Amino acid sequence: MSNAPWVTYRPAIKVLDCSIRDGGLINGHFFDDNLVEAVYRACIAAGVDYMEMGYKSDKKIFAPDKHGKWKFCDEDDVRRIVGDNKGDLKLSVMADAERTDYRNDILPRDKSVFDMVRVATYIHQIPTAVDMIKDAHDKGYEVSVNLMAASVVQDRELDEALDVFARTPADVVVLVDSYGVFYSEQIRDYTERYIKALEGTGKQVGIHTHNNLQLAFANTIEAVIVGANRLDATINGIGRGAGNCPMELLLSFLRNPKFKMRPILQCIQDHFVPLRQKIEWGCQIPYIITAHFNKHPRSAIELRGSPDKDNYVAFYDRCVEE
Amino acid sequence: MSNAPWVTYRPAIKVLDCSIRDGGLINGHFFDDNLVEAVYRACIAAGVDYMEMGYKSDKKIFAPDKHGKWKFCDEDDVRRIVGDNKGDLKLSVMADAERTDYRNDILPRDKSVFDMVRVATYIHQIPTAVDMIKDAHDKGYEVSVNLMAASVVQDRELDEALDVFARTPADVVVLVDSYGVFYSEQIRDYTERYIKALEGTGKQVGIHTHNNLQLAFANTIEAVIVGANRLDATINGIGRGAGNCPMELLLSFLRNPKFKMRPILQCIQDHFVPLRQKIEWGCQIPYIITAHFNKHPRSAIELRGSPDKDNYVAFYDRCVEE
Repeated sequence: MSNAPWVTYRPAIKVLDCSIRDGGLINGHFFDDNLVEAVYRACIAAGVDYMEMGYKSDKKIFAPDKHGKWKFCDEDDVRRIVGDNKGDLKLSVMADAERTDYRNDILPRDKSVFDMVRVATYIHQIPTAVDMIKDAHDKGYEVSVNLMAASVVQDRELDEALDVFARTPADVVVLVDSYGVFYSEQIRDYTERYIKALEGTGKQVGIHTHNNLQLAFANTIEAVIVGANRLDATINGIGRGAGNCPMELLLSFLRNPKFKMRPILQCIQDHFVPLRQKIEWGCQIPYIITAHFNKHPRSAIELRGSPDKDNYVAFYDRCVEE
Repeated sequence: MSNAPWVTYRPAIKVLDCSIRDGGLINGHFFDDNLVEAVYRACIAAGVDYMEMGYKSDKKIFAPDKHGKWKFCDEDDVRRIVGDNKGDLKLSVMADAERTDYRNDILPRDKSVFDMVRVATYIHQIPTAVDMIKDAHDKGYEVSVNLMAASVVQDRELDEALDVFARTPADVVVLVDSYGVFYSEQIRDYTERYIKALEGTGKQVGIHTHNNLQLAFANTIEAVIVGANRLDATINGIGRGAGNCPMELLLSFLRNPKFKMRPILQCIQDHFVPLRQKIEWGCQIPYIITAHFNKHPRSAIELRGSPDKDNYVAFYDRCVEE
């Protein structure tokens, strides 16, 4: 119980808002400046520690005229929202392994508005990820590494990956439940493994959940109890497919008085209620089905965009057949 | 871990569907026979153990022409759906303390289609509840007692209540998080207390959660891990306000092969998708706010039925002021 006493709080816990970054996976990163600025202002007012603006994607791979600007996060686009970002809120950008021209597109930190680079990697991309971690660290950034789709990584490979991460200059290693399939005891086991593997390195463990089984918030709490100190959340739970851990729930749970739920509620009321009329996210039945089979939610996302969006049984039967 | 191994299952776990009973709190118990029969058929096909049809409310207190028939569950109304209910699915009815003419309206079991009476009581109604438990037991029913709003009961009163329940002929005592405010560690603590207080009596502990904090399913799992064997759930999470633990998630989690998710998906697709166009349930922002303040969700339910339904900040401010 000492990790999560109920009447006090743990100052080491830091919260990262990835509404625009993970939410951008719903709409091709086409959020308008007005919304991004509203999220930015809400994060500042709510005492959130980091805000992730989007990706640093390689323009040679992804045509800029076919994707929204938050897929590239050009410095000028970000500065138009945040100016020089004076204040306590730090800015983060995600760099996908094999999709980022990191040597050229990630500037030295003193030339950049960003404070942190989060390297996202699948298990087979780790050598590239390690080089990206070093590159970002050498350029002066705080660095996080997010190993995606942990639920389909074999135990032995995971142990090797954690061992490799322990020897990089990354500041944070994030447990990522991309498929939204972990139950609480599994989150406990995995978080403990991450913490143990990084013991003595000074690195922090983070948690990024998806809400396919309505467990995104619950699993974030479980990771906190075991010792994770870096928590991802999004306003109104926005995010690909079933979405992420809702910021409003997380801030209500964390008792650090610096966190305020009210500015998040204001942002939801003013911006996310109308946004929901245009794009869908949240725990719809097809996401439960893909999670039941420990699958990536992409087929469920496709279904929800089709006229068959509520044909759950046919979708379930297709998953059984595969 | 021995209570919840991940590759096998615990045969003692029994699942109760209360879709019609708790869902009836949304629409004044005006479900049509077609829907009730669909839920009944789905429960049978899915291997659910109990189905709760509604309440046995006192017609002297509640005028029958102002409430739907599932508030009264007359034998004839139930038999029109289930016949003599031959088969493994047992039927349950809820009897609220001080709102039920139990001596007259609950028939001897051999004259009734019901198998179980669930006595619902607030902490101050326990003497009445105890008499109701005895009455139902003497009439031949399985009996459950559901102590509501556990989150606002003082520890000492709770201990006394559990001690009283231990000495009744009730078969099951259910931990009820009416306000949907408990976190997982609290669910563990409470479930352990219930189990300990009933040790040696042969009584089972049950769990009934609400989804105000998106924790209904997660908290049901936590109770299972600690040893609760009677689990309440509803199809598509239907239920008052933020709703209950979704049956489709629970059956996916429980590995007993007798439980089937597919018939529940079929029922959702055919009946609950259209029902959602008519009535609202689920974790809307105002339920997070009432849970944050450990309040009954009734003010949030009222808000959601008004033109101000998305004015979250004004509602939050009113809760702060109260």
